[in-house]
Amino acid sequence: MDAATRNIKLVIAYQGRAYHGWQRQAAGIDTVQERIEAAATRVLKHPVTVHGAGRTDAGVHAAGQVANLHTPALSVPMDGLRRAMNSRLPPDIAVRSATVVPESFHASKSAIGKTYQYRLCLSPNRPVDLAGRVWHYWQAVDVPSLRDAAARLVGRHDFAGFATSGDQRATTVRSVFRCDIEEDPPDLRITVDGDGFLYNQVRNMVGTLMEIARAHWAPDRIDRILHAADRRLAGPTAPPDGLSLLCVHYRPEDLRIPETSQPQQTGSLK
Amino acid sequence: MDAATRNIKLVIAYQGRAYHGWQRQAAGIDTVQERIEAAATRVLKHPVTVHGAGRTDAGVHAAGQVANLHTPALSVPMDGLRRAMNSRLPPDIAVRSATVVPESFHASKSAIGKTYQYRLCLSPNRPVDLAGRVWHYWQAVDVPSLRDAAARLVGRHDFAGFATSGDQRATTVRSVFRCDIEEDPPDLRITVDGDGFLYNQVRNMVGTLMEIARAHWAPDRIDRILHAADRRLAGPTAPPDGLSLLCVHYRPEDLRIPETSQPQQTGSLK
Repeated sequence: MDAATRNIKLVIAYQGRAYHGWQRQAAGIDTVQERIEAAATRVLKHPVTVHGAGRTDAGVHAAGQVANLHTPALSVPMDGLRRAMNSRLPPDIAVRSATVVPESFHASKSAIGKTYQYRLCLSPNRPVDLAGRVWHYWQAVDVPSLRDAAARLVGRHDFAGFATSGDQRATTVRSVFRCDIEEDPPDLRITVDGDGFLYNQVRNMVGTLMEIARAHWAPDRIDRILHAADRRLAGPTAPPDGLSLLCVHYRPEDLRIPETSQPQQTGSLK
Repeated sequence: MDAATRNIKLVIAYQGRAYHGWQRQAAGIDTVQERIEAAATRVLKHPVTVHGAGRTDAGVHAAGQVANLHTPALSVPMDGLRRAMNSRLPPDIAVRSATVVPESFHASKSAIGKTYQYRLCLSPNRPVDLAGRVWHYWQAVDVPSLRDAAARLVGRHDFAGFATSGDQRATTVRSVFRCDIEEDPPDLRITVDGDGFLYNQVRNMVGTLMEIARAHWAPDRIDRILHAADRRLAGPTAPPDGLSLLCVHYRPEDLRIPETSQPQQTGSLK
């Protein structure tokens, strides 16, 4: 039993403004992963490495980033871990939940989908309160064209035209399950669900959609970009400010501990 | 006419998180005043000094800070000045309006009152999105006691007990016209109107009110602090995060240009 470890899934929220993205970098560069690892290391009293589901870039936010960690600390209650980590995290990072998951669970490799939301503020007035949280867009927006274009992104496509070069993944084919436009004046939100996203894919899709929204291009530009798989046909990369990783999706069976291995957590949950 | 200048009133909004307060400091220390002066200097093409109504501290925000500046540039249209300054300001600072006012107007000396608002988030969950914008308060709050205490602050009193020492002003007597408690769960907002405020007065009032709200003290503690004028009896200084300067009040006649001096602005407004 002394070699046993628990695999713990953390759901994490953060405001990305102050950080150089999720992923740990060189010493002295402030990242969310490094903050989470430092908090977990202090609470669990052993060096902790966490594996994140999505490498959010500098300035990108999260409401439901997921990470997992392995620990030999078998008796720490999960809500206690959450609270103790939060007391060691800055006000712009929070652990929303901590749960024990099967040893095989991996926040990134087990993920079957992600939901991102991009928030714009459509207003002639600068939304000072939302600096760093939205893309302030003051040009006129044609919402029907935007919806038409967004619908064309849904489906299984080669999204190479929307990937910033440097993406090393073997295939650039991905599925987008939905791309919804929600008006909540002066806010406009674009919510995208997919089985995975290429580097900068969401920001490049949003940058392209807004070129269509401001009537610089017609909605069928989306079809051309998908067909040609040519990044040069797409629009600029939207600023990181408006982007948030809302949630990461997993199969229920990948999160569920089999009955037989339950005894090891007795008394540790709640 | 070539010696003539115009006096321009600016209404300014900012998020204070990234700045060392309003007031210009040594070179290399980022302040809102310095940013405003730099933008005005570039637009008006001469060195500009602005006079602010309130010296908000580091981390304190503003929706309606007021400043004025004198310029020999007689032909710049006011909306053009506002837009040109905004294009030279970061996303967390904005000039909301620019208007020509009488030469005698002074943003600080002409002010007859100010409204501040303090925002708390009452929630067991850390409001990551509002980091730096609210005081996250997770203890139970007794709102009737809070309202009772707030009402006791209204009136003409010696507020020395709520001033952080170091305030050099001759008298510590001030009038508070209202101190309203507004519940908008999970938000709680405390809005204070007064003819002027001592150094840290609003934050010390809020810190004291929340000691009463969490039932550490009874509401009549306010009367004791006002009567004794002893800072040691009051509560801690509330964090800057929740505080915003909502607006600055002036007499209408101090803002109005007399008819006879109008010609000098012909064609410059709009």
